[in-house]
Amino acid sequence: MYRIGFDIGGTNIAAGIVDDSLAVVARMTQPFQKQAHPGALAETVAKMTHALCEKAGLNESPASVGIAVPGSIDPAAERVIDAYNLDLHDVPLRAEVRAHFPQTPVFLANDADAAALAELYAGAFRCAKSAVLFTLGTGVGGGVIVNGRLWRGGMGHGVELGHMALDIGGTRCTCGMRGCIETRCAATTLIREAREQLAAGEHGLLFERTGGDAARVDAKLVVDCARAGDPAASAIFARFVDALGSAVVSVIHLLDPEVIAIGGGVSLAGEFLFAPLAENVREKCFFSEFARIVPAQLGNDAGIVGAAMLEQDASL
Amino acid sequence: MYRIGFDIGGTNIAAGIVDDSLAVVARMTQPFQKQAHPGALAETVAKMTHALCEKAGLNESPASVGIAVPGSIDPAAERVIDAYNLDLHDVPLRAEVRAHFPQTPVFLANDADAAALAELYAGAFRCAKSAVLFTLGTGVGGGVIVNGRLWRGGMGHGVELGHMALDIGGTRCTCGMRGCIETRCAATTLIREAREQLAAGEHGLLFERTGGDAARVDAKLVVDCARAGDPAASAIFARFVDALGSAVVSVIHLLDPEVIAIGGGVSLAGEFLFAPLAENVREKCFFSEFARIVPAQLGNDAGIVGAAMLEQDASL
Repeated sequence: MYRIGFDIGGTNIAAGIVDDSLAVVARMTQPFQKQAHPGALAETVAKMTHALCEKAGLNESPASVGIAVPGSIDPAAERVIDAYNLDLHDVPLRAEVRAHFPQTPVFLANDADAAALAELYAGAFRCAKSAVLFTLGTGVGGGVIVNGRLWRGGMGHGVELGHMALDIGGTRCTCGMRGCIETRCAATTLIREAREQLAAGEHGLLFERTGGDAARVDAKLVVDCARAGDPAASAIFARFVDALGSAVVSVIHLLDPEVIAIGGGVSLAGEFLFAPLAENVREKCFFSEFARIVPAQLGNDAGIVGAAMLEQDASL
Repeated sequence: MYRIGFDIGGTNIAAGIVDDSLAVVARMTQPFQKQAHPGALAETVAKMTHALCEKAGLNESPASVGIAVPGSIDPAAERVIDAYNLDLHDVPLRAEVRAHFPQTPVFLANDADAAALAELYAGAFRCAKSAVLFTLGTGVGGGVIVNGRLWRGGMGHGVELGHMALDIGGTRCTCGMRGCIETRCAATTLIREAREQLAAGEHGLLFERTGGDAARVDAKLVVDCARAGDPAASAIFARFVDALGSAVVSVIHLLDPEVIAIGGGVSLAGEFLFAPLAENVREKCFFSEFARIVPAQLGNDAGIVGAAMLEQDASL
């Protein structure tokens, strides 16, 4: 038996065949193009599915087709309400894809939710019944597992973990609220604060490595400079860890999950991030035992694997 | 069939008989006394149970005995780990009570959790599968309902909703962390900020009603002065509503519950609180539809009714 997972992004559509061991045994990527006409994306999904099956030499139909999109999904998981990067608004994507595969179950989910599901079946959340994924990137995304299933919200709106309040007097978020987790814990936070340091005339390692060119600052540079002991970068990183620690503690105090995984490029900092983060959480947490805090494991395959596992989740 | 619920507080032990309609048909209160010897509290529970049944003229045994305590409960819900106001530490209360009622199921829970369960069966959460209770008092407590059941935390540690981060640069909380929900949304917050205004020489209605005596400030006074249009009290109340709105939005963005109930004395402010609170949440929330935000309904009976319903919750 094999399942098909699609991870649709604003740049590329990635698709993969996921086997019973949850390995991605074949994959395919093509550039995402905004829909020229209604149903065009579903046609692309159908064509890529056929091409993938052919490439892998599979004759049987897939057990399911799952689709992860970076946007909001309606409570019935039938429609994409808004996926701004894809320019999809109120599109009945599940029905459109199903029209191409009348015999095959088709499922739809938000990409952060799919990533959490991928960790549940194939990554950091294996054997856990409750878990929370933070994905630190341009923004902060996340997914929640409760009772061994994907939590799509009590009203079906999903999870907007990056827009929980953390610092209500703080920086204005893109969403309009002040001090969301996203304003303090995104990879972007490290970049923004390093650029502020450069603009303020900081002349340490950040300056040396960039020649003072703010455009050359990325999150990895800030982490590298902090690791090298640069005072300005270290202060930025310490502030980041402190904020992320508080965000993690908030989630622990509400849900007390067994595992919290951190994904996104910043999580590649490894123990340089996870050791002080665990210490920060230990200082703040009410409970003497609390969630294991670990790196997310699925990386770029999270969307494909999670989308492929939506049928399994729905069957529970 | 009837059930017995106990609400054990640092001042009084309240017990009640709860019938099938979830009405408290008989009740009894006696002062709480710290345990003179191990097992003394369980003996009191047994005596009060017998006295209550006698008072109500009941011959059959209760279907269950439930006990709510203001403290932390172990993951197996057998022991009180720490209930500081009761001076109970690592007490196997469930087994001690069960020894008096070998034929009767006995259950133990945190009092905020029990209050959420009471709202589920008999109050604001009826017909909901997901809900969150905020109780605003000296601190901020809370309970969570997920999939129609009490959520005791994924690791069994319960919920510490008042110690989610809200304002991480802000006021130091009693727990040691800065800017917990409790520092901004407790009834105590209103009192603290009004006293600061008096100390700073504010001479409006707060001064007039208290004669400048900080000890005479309580939360109701602040609400009353705000309602009367006093500028200082209005500013304090607006700041409180804004912080509570952010706390509510945080919970919505993580759990998207169907209902959020606000309990504690401040909730008696009625529409003067709930109208601006709903507006504040609407401005901040990602979802155009979100949880109904309503007053908690159970009041002082929450602990008794919730404790009585623990057996029902455990049977699901």
